[in-house]
Amino acid sequence: MLFMVQMKVNPPSHLTKEEFDDVKVAEKNRALDIQRKGKWPHLWRVTGKYSNVSIFDVESNQELHELLSSLPLFPYMDIEVTPLNEHPSALKD
Amino acid sequence: MLFMVQMKVNPPSHLTKEEFDDVKVAEKNRALDIQRKGKWPHLWRVTGKYSNVSIFDVESNQELHELLSSLPLFPYMDIEVTPLNEHPSALKD
Amino acid sequence: MLFMVQMKVNPPSHLTKEEFDDVKVAEKNRALDIQRKGKWPHLWRVTGKYSNVSIFDVESNQELHELLSSLPLFPYMDIEVTPLNEHPSALKD
Amino acid sequence: MLFMVQMKVNPPSHLTKEEFDDVKVAEKNRALDIQRKGKWPHLWRVTGKYSNVSIFDVESNQELHELLSSLPLFPYMDIEVTPLNEHPSALKD
Amino acid sequence: MLFMVQMKVNPPSHLTKEEFDDVKVAEKNRALDIQRKGKWPHLWRVTGKYSNVSIFDVESNQELHELLSSLPLFPYMDIEVTPLNEHPSALKD
Amino acid sequence: MLFMVQMKVNPPSHLTKEEFDDVKVAEKNRALDIQRKGKWPHLWRVTGKYSNVSIFDVESNQELHELLSSLPLFPYMDIEVTPLNEHPSALKD
Amino acid sequence: MLFMVQMKVNPPSHLTKEEFDDVKVAEKNRALDIQRKGKWPHLWRVTGKYSNVSIFDVESNQELHELLSSLPLFPYMDIEVTPLNEHPSALKD
Amino acid sequence: MLFMVQMKVNPPSHLTKEEFDDVKVAEKNRALDIQRKGKWPHLWRVTGKYSNVSIFDVESNQELHELLSSLPLFPYMDIEVTPLNEHPSALKD
Amino acid sequence: MLFMVQMKVNPPSHLTKEEFDDVKVAEKNRALDIQRKGKWPHLWRVTGKYSNVSIFDVESNQELHELLSSLPLFPYMDIEVTPLNEHPSALKD
Amino acid sequence: MLFMVQMKVNPPSHLTKEEFDDVKVAEKNRALDIQRKGKWPHLWRVTGKYSNVSIFDVESNQELHELLSSLPLFPYMDIEVTPLNEHPSALKD
Repeated sequence: MLFMVQMKVNPPSHLTKEEFDDVKVAEKNRALDIQRKGKWPHLWRVTGKYSNVSIFDVESNQELHELLSSLPLFPYMDIEVTPLNEHPSALKD
Repeated sequence: MLFMVQMKVNPPSHLTKEEFDDVKVAEKNRALDIQRKGKWPHLWRVTGKYSNVSIFDVESNQELHELLSSLPLFPYMDIEVTPLNEHPSALKD
Repeated sequence: MLFMVQMKVNPPSHLTKEEFDDVKVAEKNRALDIQRKGKWPHLWRVTGKYSNVSIFDVESNQELHELLSSLPLFPYMDIEVTPLNEHPSALKD
Repeated sequence: MLFMVQMKVNPPSHLTKEEFDDVKVAEKNRALDIQRKGKWPHLWRVTGKYSNVSIFDVESNQELHELLSSLPLFPYMDIEVTPLNEHPSALKD
Repeated sequence: MLFMVQMKVNPPSHLTKEEFDDVKVAEKNRALDIQRKGKWPHLWRVTGKYSNVSIFDVESNQELHELLSSLPLFPYMDIEVTPLNEHPSALKD
Repeated sequence: MLFMVQMKVNPPSHLTKEEFDDVKVAEKNRALDIQRKGKWPHLWRVTGKYSNVSIFDVESNQELHELLSSLPLFPYMDIEVTPLNEHPSALKD
Repeated sequence: MLFMVQMKVNPPSHLTKEEFDDVKVAEKNRALDIQRKGKWPHLWRVTGKYSNVSIFDVESNQELHELLSSLPLFPYMDIEVTPLNEHPSALKD
Repeated sequence: MLFMVQMKVNPPSHLTKEEFDDVKVAEKNRALDIQRKGKWPHLWRVTGKYSNVSIFDVESNQELHELLSSLPLFPYMDIEVTPLNEHPSALKD
Repeated sequence: MLFMVQMKVNPPSHLTKEEFDDVKVAEKNRALDIQRKGKWPHLWRVTGKYSNVSIFDVESNQELHELLSSLPLFPYMDIEVTPLNEHPSALKD
Repeated sequence: MLFMVQMKVNPPSHLTKEEFDDVKVAEKNRALDIQRKGKWPHLWRVTGKYSNVSIFDVESNQELHELLSSLPLFPYMDIEVTPLNEHPSALKD
C-alpha cells in the first residue's frame, strides 16, 4: 500500500552543529536500512529545499507511523502523509 | 530529470456529461501514450480525491510544459510542479 | 485500519433542486449500506456546516477510495483523508 | 455531547529532555484518567505526526475546556475544537 | 451554553433578485423568532461586510445545528462556530 | 461603538514562570478595571484555547488602542480587531 | 476617526457588459459624492489590480457601514476594514 | 524601474471558445507591442501553468498600471506586482 | 509616486528591554526625519496591533528600499509594499 | 533552462552579529562567482524586504540544487523554485 510522504527538515537552533551532525548520520543509516527492506521505494530531494518527497510501501498506517517516528530527524520535521492508490490511467507493467 | 506533478481536476460545469466524458477518454489515451514513451514513470491516484501525484522524467522544463499542456484535461486542472533531484540518502540500485 | 475522512458538500448550482434531492437520497442509502458493512463506524455532522467528520475502517487505501468515489455526492464534495493509527495513551478496552 | 478535538504537540525548546519526559508521563496518566471517566471515548494518533484526533463526550463547553486545560501538555499544544452532532444518515445502533 | 457564530452571506447568482429578496425576508423573520426565544442574545453586523458576528445560547450542539440549519440563508452562508465558556477574568455581575 | 476583539496569548519562552505569573495577575486586575468602566461588556474564553473573544464598547479607535495596549499581556498577544455595528435583523430591546 | 478600507472588485459574470457599465457609472458618482463630503479623504488604485486602498474619516462604525453598503459596487466587492489611529511617531502638522 | 509581475489567467466560462480565442490573439499583439517598446524586457511561461513571470521596466506605477490594464486578458487575470530594485550582490555588467 | 507600506513589528527576544528601547528611540527619530523630507506623508497606527499603515511618496523603488532599510526597526519587521497610482474616481483637488 | 528562485533570508538569532556578517560576506562572494559563470543571469532585491527574485540558467535540477545549497546563507533562507520555459508571446530577439 503506497503513501506519499513529504518531509521538511527544520534544523533545531538549540542543538550544536556536532550534535545535529550526529543526528543526520543516524538518519541516513536508518533511511538506508528502511529502503533496503523495500518499505521506502522512492526518496527524492526537492530542488532548493531541505525537504524530500518520498513514497512508502507498507502494510498499514501503523507500520508507516512506526517507520516515520523511528527516524532520528522525526522531532525536527514537518511531515505530510498522503495515501495513494492505483490510478485508472496508469500503464500496467 | 525528475519532476513531481500534482494534478487536481475541477470538472467544468459548462460542459455536458457527454462532452466531459469525451475529454476524459482522450485524457486517458494521451496519458498512456506519454507513459509508454517513458516520460511519465509514476502516476498514482490520491485516495479520496479527483487528483493524482505523478513523477515525470524529462529533458527540460520546456518538454514538461509541452507534455502537460497537451493533456486534454489541462484547462480543467490545478497543477503544481516540483523539481526533484537525487537525495544523498537514497539507496543506489 | 482507520482513516478520518472530512467531507464538505458544495451543492452544485447547475442541478435543479429535484435533481440534487435525488442525489441526496441515493447518498443516504449508499452511506447506510457502507455503514452496515462495518466500513464506516462513525459519521458525525459538524455543527453549523454542511460537512461531516467520519471514521472509516478499511483494509487498504484502494478500498477507501472505492468506497468514497462510490458516494453519489462524491463529485460535489471537498474531501480530506487523514490516516490514523493506535495512540500510545489510548485506553485499551 | 460530542466534540472533535485535534491536538498538535509543539515540544518546547526551553525544557530539558528529562523535564519534558516528566510532562509526557503526567499527560498519559491524565489522559487515561479522563478516558476511564468516559469523557474521551476516542483517541487516535495521526500517522506521521506528533498529533492526535480525539472525540470528547461532555456535558458543556465549560467541562470540555476544564478537561483540555487540565492536560499537562496543554501549554505546548495547538488545539482545534469542532462541535459535532448527530448526522441524519448515521446508522442508528 | 454559549457559541460565537460568524456568518458570511454569499448571494447566489442562480436566483433572481426577487427570489433572493424573499429568502432575506424569511431570514429576518426567522432570526427575530429565534432571538425572542432567547437563543440568539447577540447579533451584530460586521462593518463593511455582508457578514455578522453572533452569540448563541443553547442547550447542546444539536440544538445549535437545528437553529442554524433552519435559517433560510443557511445554504448561502459560510458559517464558523466557536464554542465559548466562562473567562476567569470576566467581571461577575 | 462596538468592536469584536479576539486575543490569542503566546506565552513568551524568555520569561520565567514567576515573571509571567506576575504579568497574568496584573492582566486580570487591568481587565477587571476596564470592565468596571463599562468599556469591555463581554469577555469569553474560547473553549480549548488560550484565547478569548471580547466585545469592547468605546468612543473611538484611539480609545480602543489605548485600552488594548495598556494590557500587560499586550506584547504577548496576537490581536484581531473587527469593527461592528447594528444589524438590521437584531431584536430591539 | 480613520479607517483603511481595501476594496477588490469581482465583476459578476451574470450581468451583461452594459448592465455592469451602468453600475460603474453610478459607483463613480457615489464615490465622488462621498469624497466631497470629506468622508473619503484618500482613494488610490492598486497598481495592476481592480482594487483600491482608501482612507475613510467617519464618526462611527455605523456611518462607515452605511457609506460602504451604499456603494453600487458593494455586492461585487471583497472589502477589508482596518481601524486606524494616531501613530506616536507621526509628524504633527 | 523594475517590477516583477506574475499573471495567472482564469479563462472565463461565460465566453465562447471563439470569443476567448479572439481575446488571446489581441493579447499576443498587445504583448509584442509593449515588448518592442522595451517596457516588458522579460516574459516567461511558468511550467505546467497558464501563468507567466514577467519583468517590466517603467517610469512609474502609473505607467505600469496603464500597460497592465491595457492587456485584453486583464479582466481574466490574477496579477501580483512586486517592486524590485538593484541587489547589492548583483554582478555589475 | 505613492506606495502603501504595512509594517508589523516583531520585538526580538534576544535583545534586552533597554537595547530594544534604544532601537525604538532611533526609529522614531529616523521616521520623523523621513517625514520632514516629505517622503512619508502618512503614518497611522493599526488599532490593537504593533503595526502601522504608511504611505510613502518617492521617486523610485530604489529610493523606497533605501528609506525602509535605513529604519532601525527594519530587521525586526514584516513589511508589505503595495504600489499605488491615481484612481479614476478620485476627487481632483 | 531557466528557473525563478525567490529567496527570503531569516537572520538566525543564535549567531552573533559578527558571525552572521561573515556569512554574508561569503554569500556575496559565492553569488558573484556563480553569476560570473553565467548560471545566475538575474538577481534583483525585492523592495522593502530582505528577499530577492533571481533567474538561474542551468542544465538540470541537480545543478540548480547544488548551486543553491552551496550558498552560505542557504540554511537561513526560505527558497521557492519555479521552473520556467519559453512563452509563446515572448518577443524573439
